[in-house]
Amino acid sequence: MTTAAPDSTPIPADPGSPAPAARVRIGLLGCGTVGGALARLLEERRSTIEARTGVEISIGRVAVRDIAKSRDVGLGAELFTTDTMSVVEDPEIDIVVELIGGVDPARDLVARALELGKPVITGNKALLAVHGAGLYAAADAAGVDLLFEAAVAGGIPLMRPLRESLVGEPVTRVMGIINGTTNYILTRMSEEGASYDEALAEAQELGYAEEDPTADVEGHDAAAKAAIIATIVYGAIVQADEVHREGIAGITADDIAVAARLGYAIKAIAVIEKAGEGADGGPEVAVRVHPALVPLTHPLASVRDSFNAIFLEGDAVGDLMFYGRGAGGEPTASAILGDLVDAAVNRVNASSARIGSFARAVVRPVADLLSAYYLSLAVVDQPGVLARVAEQFGRFGVSIRSMEQQGLGDGARLIFITHTSRESAVQDTLAALRELDIVSDVHAVVRVVGDEI
Amino acid sequence: MTTAAPDSTPIPADPGSPAPAARVRIGLLGCGTVGGALARLLEERRSTIEARTGVEISIGRVAVRDIAKSRDVGLGAELFTTDTMSVVEDPEIDIVVELIGGVDPARDLVARALELGKPVITGNKALLAVHGAGLYAAADAAGVDLLFEAAVAGGIPLMRPLRESLVGEPVTRVMGIINGTTNYILTRMSEEGASYDEALAEAQELGYAEEDPTADVEGHDAAAKAAIIATIVYGAIVQADEVHREGIAGITADDIAVAARLGYAIKAIAVIEKAGEGADGGPEVAVRVHPALVPLTHPLASVRDSFNAIFLEGDAVGDLMFYGRGAGGEPTASAILGDLVDAAVNRVNASSARIGSFARAVVRPVADLLSAYYLSLAVVDQPGVLARVAEQFGRFGVSIRSMEQQGLGDGARLIFITHTSRESAVQDTLAALRELDIVSDVHAVVRVVGDEI
Repeated sequence: MTTAAPDSTPIPADPGSPAPAARVRIGLLGCGTVGGALARLLEERRSTIEARTGVEISIGRVAVRDIAKSRDVGLGAELFTTDTMSVVEDPEIDIVVELIGGVDPARDLVARALELGKPVITGNKALLAVHGAGLYAAADAAGVDLLFEAAVAGGIPLMRPLRESLVGEPVTRVMGIINGTTNYILTRMSEEGASYDEALAEAQELGYAEEDPTADVEGHDAAAKAAIIATIVYGAIVQADEVHREGIAGITADDIAVAARLGYAIKAIAVIEKAGEGADGGPEVAVRVHPALVPLTHPLASVRDSFNAIFLEGDAVGDLMFYGRGAGGEPTASAILGDLVDAAVNRVNASSARIGSFARAVVRPVADLLSAYYLSLAVVDQPGVLARVAEQFGRFGVSIRSMEQQGLGDGARLIFITHTSRESAVQDTLAALRELDIVSDVHAVVRVVGDEI
Repeated sequence: MTTAAPDSTPIPADPGSPAPAARVRIGLLGCGTVGGALARLLEERRSTIEARTGVEISIGRVAVRDIAKSRDVGLGAELFTTDTMSVVEDPEIDIVVELIGGVDPARDLVARALELGKPVITGNKALLAVHGAGLYAAADAAGVDLLFEAAVAGGIPLMRPLRESLVGEPVTRVMGIINGTTNYILTRMSEEGASYDEALAEAQELGYAEEDPTADVEGHDAAAKAAIIATIVYGAIVQADEVHREGIAGITADDIAVAARLGYAIKAIAVIEKAGEGADGGPEVAVRVHPALVPLTHPLASVRDSFNAIFLEGDAVGDLMFYGRGAGGEPTASAILGDLVDAAVNRVNASSARIGSFARAVVRPVADLLSAYYLSLAVVDQPGVLARVAEQFGRFGVSIRSMEQQGLGDGARLIFITHTSRESAVQDTLAALRELDIVSDVHAVVRVVGDEI
């Protein structure tokens, strides 16, 4: 057995001449869908990876919860153990791949690996969105890689382009469809006129949504990913609980149809943007997750089914979008494998990707955010209603971009799209509207993004 | 002045402790739109790059054609010279950035830099599409980086994700909108019903198309980029002259309107796919550039104006798409800068990206390619015409998926969409149709991609 200490088996100086490959042994924590797919991909691509990088990557040990469970992943039974920490601490393990998910015990395992100077690959968004600050700092202090391409948007190469291709690029805004379940539900509602409940049930049948869909439909999953994106894009720690969250359960097929007539798709998106300069000179950021009207001509509007996409507005590079599978064993394993090759090559070269040690970000409160809004009000159908409603918008300085009446009599609704306004002013307007006897219901309040007005 | 020889100024072992940055000096060949933008970006981002990578990058010398020309790029006059080779050979220059374009003298300059062990960054697609084989081999032999993110799809991170994130990923097919000019023209024709000539004139006014638009509208530009993508994706050299090319000048606004009614957009695309195994065990590839009908539900269909996008179908990762600005000074400079940081860090670490040394690809002849087709025939409007036309399809085994008649009398046309058929069989069918007295014109023959039928 060969340990791949940085100085013992370097990349040959002349890659043209065949030389024994450097060997790197990984410890796999967890061997479910993603871990199994990773083991298969590693086996299939071993020779290609070795030819392109000069590094041979093998799985040295695997920690699982139930050792008796049969696994068809082509790994010998002697590699498996239930003692997770022993895998991390095994001196013959060079790199740790953490796929067990959740905050505990993942946090201790990752921290211990970094402390031992071992690079870590993880797809654990919950861990990073809560304890990222400490872990990034630990990786930085140890000078080893902590890579997490799989934590956001599954198989889509995003973290590497952000970190490497766009190094130093000032980013105005990132808008992402980063939860496949909600995008699937909204696509079905849009394309088939299905109700929210019907579309959710369909997503559950197909395995896109959990039996308890809260984490997806209430935006918890997207908030964790948005926090990670914000941290990497703006170089300052944003935690999941600092992300403003609104779910999609209030959206109806009718809202989607009205939006389409007005030239918009309704999508569940994350918006991560620079809101200003913080007092310490760092960026002040705004991070939120909510349904939104997106113009049909915007690239995000045509992201269908369970696909993910991240749209980025950069200073020099202009608009970029990355699109692909945000979940699933094989796409996620593909992202893990890309990180693994990177970490293995870096380890052999005694270098690392150096995320940097971040300060906490200044996060702007949601009340101070600016957005345009789509509002749908159920009103009494009588003369003078529009004037009384419009007066409330005027009182709080919310300017109306377009208005139309839908339906008559008891079913009458007024649909407004506002110009860009401050959240607090819109909330004040809504409170005032709810007080009016002629407004029987404020049905939908959805932000409009992607066409600055 | 500091030379950044790999062993003289290494990255500090503990990046947590401030240490003097390694310095890397670049020689810039060419200082036009992209070179000027690069100089500005380097200046703006110097401190961020240094903080994130520990490397300080500065412009050491600049070769230009006309030294008297005024340039507002913030570089001292003493850095400029007209002697291009002297910049390459200057012992104080660590990395060469080639932005002069064209094959000669770029080829000699790049080759000389590699021979001297200096990494090269280039955006020169013409050079790589013709002489890539020799240059990749030279870089490989010297163990230095030859990076060219900017050569394909401008600012879109594509080469790095292909090379690093997707290392070893078997790719079934890549479809790309990789020429912004033709996408702009087709978007105007589609959205405004403009004629080809009107849309071209508009593109020329806006500076999206050259006075002589041949390189764009006849597909030469896209063919060079497609050759480079094919080489990187399949690990075997494809040259520009091996790419089958068809231009967009024959497409009418009417074709676009008919296609839209049938559920398709017409886009100028590059298709790069694995066609089989070559005799030597390497891949047999098919590479072509032509207008195509793309289903309106396909992500490529909504790529508008002068944007580029590359859609990739991978074995494990699934469908991916990369979207952004394919041209322009700043997006291109952004791609060059990403490569430059990579090469600078690698140089300091004494490593390189190792493209690999490629054999020539086996390229399948266009006559043997498979595709579905959209055909528009002008016919005499009389009974029995369809039977006689359909008979010709049958003779050559081309199966019809849908047919509709458009117009009456002298303006009558038959629109066919075929099932997937061999190119040679379609060409034989067309030749036979042209012989029929009832067919007055075979107006449009456009491949259909993206919905396998």
